[in-house]
Amino acid sequence: MNDDQYYMKLALDLAASAKGKTNPNPVVGAVIVKDGVIAGTGIHRKAGEPHAEVHAFKMAGEYAEGATLYVTLEPCSHYGKTPPCANLVRESGVRRVVVATQDPNPEVAGRGISIIKDAGIEVEVGVLEKEAQRLNERFIHNMLTDRPFVISKYAMTLDGKLATHTGHSKWITGEDSRHSVHLLRDEVDAILVGIGTVLADDPSLTTRLPEGGGKNPIRIILDSELRVPLDAKVVQVSDAKTLIVTQENAPADKMDLLREKGIEFIFVPKNETGLNLKALMEELYKKGITDVLLEGGSEVNASFLREGLIDKYLIYIAPKLLGGRNSLTPYTGMNVDTMDEAMDVSFSGVETFGEDIRITAYPK
Amino acid sequence: MNDDQYYMKLALDLAASAKGKTNPNPVVGAVIVKDGVIAGTGIHRKAGEPHAEVHAFKMAGEYAEGATLYVTLEPCSHYGKTPPCANLVRESGVRRVVVATQDPNPEVAGRGISIIKDAGIEVEVGVLEKEAQRLNERFIHNMLTDRPFVISKYAMTLDGKLATHTGHSKWITGEDSRHSVHLLRDEVDAILVGIGTVLADDPSLTTRLPEGGGKNPIRIILDSELRVPLDAKVVQVSDAKTLIVTQENAPADKMDLLREKGIEFIFVPKNETGLNLKALMEELYKKGITDVLLEGGSEVNASFLREGLIDKYLIYIAPKLLGGRNSLTPYTGMNVDTMDEAMDVSFSGVETFGEDIRITAYPK
Repeated sequence: MNDDQYYMKLALDLAASAKGKTNPNPVVGAVIVKDGVIAGTGIHRKAGEPHAEVHAFKMAGEYAEGATLYVTLEPCSHYGKTPPCANLVRESGVRRVVVATQDPNPEVAGRGISIIKDAGIEVEVGVLEKEAQRLNERFIHNMLTDRPFVISKYAMTLDGKLATHTGHSKWITGEDSRHSVHLLRDEVDAILVGIGTVLADDPSLTTRLPEGGGKNPIRIILDSELRVPLDAKVVQVSDAKTLIVTQENAPADKMDLLREKGIEFIFVPKNETGLNLKALMEELYKKGITDVLLEGGSEVNASFLREGLIDKYLIYIAPKLLGGRNSLTPYTGMNVDTMDEAMDVSFSGVETFGEDIRITAYPK
Repeated sequence: MNDDQYYMKLALDLAASAKGKTNPNPVVGAVIVKDGVIAGTGIHRKAGEPHAEVHAFKMAGEYAEGATLYVTLEPCSHYGKTPPCANLVRESGVRRVVVATQDPNPEVAGRGISIIKDAGIEVEVGVLEKEAQRLNERFIHNMLTDRPFVISKYAMTLDGKLATHTGHSKWITGEDSRHSVHLLRDEVDAILVGIGTVLADDPSLTTRLPEGGGKNPIRIILDSELRVPLDAKVVQVSDAKTLIVTQENAPADKMDLLREKGIEFIFVPKNETGLNLKALMEELYKKGITDVLLEGGSEVNASFLREGLIDKYLIYIAPKLLGGRNSLTPYTGMNVDTMDEAMDVSFSGVETFGEDIRITAYPK
């Protein structure tokens, strides 16, 4: 690891510390180094607050003169809630700027780098680029697709079962895995499940951290026939907002009762395989939802998989064997004849949570 | 890692290099250290050949005087194919003996250590004991149960599927994983599959290593109704011995035809869930089969699992999602209602083979 990589790694670690707190913005970290000494550090803490560079330059003060700025994402070039960081960099006196990756935002996309280069400042782009892109995978996906980033999470036994044939699934994984799911919930804008999961498990789908606090993502329920019981936890537990996805012709009286409990509705047309999920995703993104944790059920998983709408997989595997021809399995609904028709993914990591392991994978 | 652990690790690495070559004996490595210099090394290469200690002492010669012997398994105390190593150690002049683990063989079981201690030599037992026991898990299991060590190996997609609903499974895993299976075959005495696997895939079940060579384990086919086709590869490909497990009343004419091809038979009574596998395992052990690689089929896997006959799990997971309600799954046959009735295992490691991962687990 050379010096550039070392300081960029530090900037990335700073950025990562804000993960889930900056939506819809990316996470960004900045480090200013003068003569081998760190003169300034900063992160973007929250949408609407100053960008990472602003904090770093404030801390660096006069030390910025002749220094190197490391920043995990191209400095912005547009007037948003804050003035363009590229202008700040241009006037800061730094001699060199190292950028991990270009900003995919069509309003920036290289313009920030141009402003800085045009001022005669040396710019290097691409140091730890892959890591930087992974860190902002949600933001990059949003910018490129205008859709939320969808994470499919499920917990299975070592023989690939989500539940027994009766639907019983409590608990496949241990406490550490379940805790990590609550940390995930704390990071995302929304959780999505099918009505089947609500009927079978009656989950509250809230964030419960041992130290308290945490953010409750919006609960999204796919319920084309509006079968949700009025006494379901997603209706009664009001700590989190609930959004029910159904059809225009859903029974008006039941909708009224649910509206009284603060439930909101999104109407999505049905297509031959169920609710039109692409249309739903576009609608959710317009509502400001930048990422969705898919927490539920073989049917919902299969629908998203079939539509190519899963952007990341987090799969918990517990040290258990369940067996059984009719035990529930992660994805039903698909029915291919030969192995080469399987959907390819690529593994990006394996972690341990107590006695369980978690595999991270991406579509190929 | 202290000095004792360092030298014992070396002895274990030496022992591991003979894995699969010493059956029915354990693998053993020995290192003799005099004044911080390695004076002798040895392994047990093959049943009937000298034990590890003999080679190490031969190499050490006069340097054994006052030295320390590191040996991965208690020196033997009984006259087998070779004289007792404990006597050799007693007369060798070593000052100290470090043993990783006691020999579970009822004919030894501490007697070797006693002989050495009684001669006034300092003995320490238990250095890297867990590693030593794992390395000889097959041998220890044999000694304690009089049954072969059964390894359940299967390859599944990330959603727990062995094959499509049509039974198509070629190929789930990549070349590196498949190569590792041939290395496994080279290590075991026997491979076992159900007739279902023979009918569906017509495998040859031989060891194919890229560099050639390798040992073909005995092929064992569970075939209670003697449905094996005469043109099946396990009948026609004569590189490996085939043993068919069936019932006494199997058709005599078909048996004769199979016998002409060199096939042997084991007759095992049926119980309510199929062939009596415990009886079969005892029979196989009597025939000198010390370990069995279970390579096949959901039904056979489930039968062994239900009978508590699986001693180790090697599960390959490929970066693929197959889905499908009727895709084949690792264990059918079991049908429990709640998750706490699942069979607990414990993960002992995760390795990477090309794009696949392999989980090693043991019954809990």
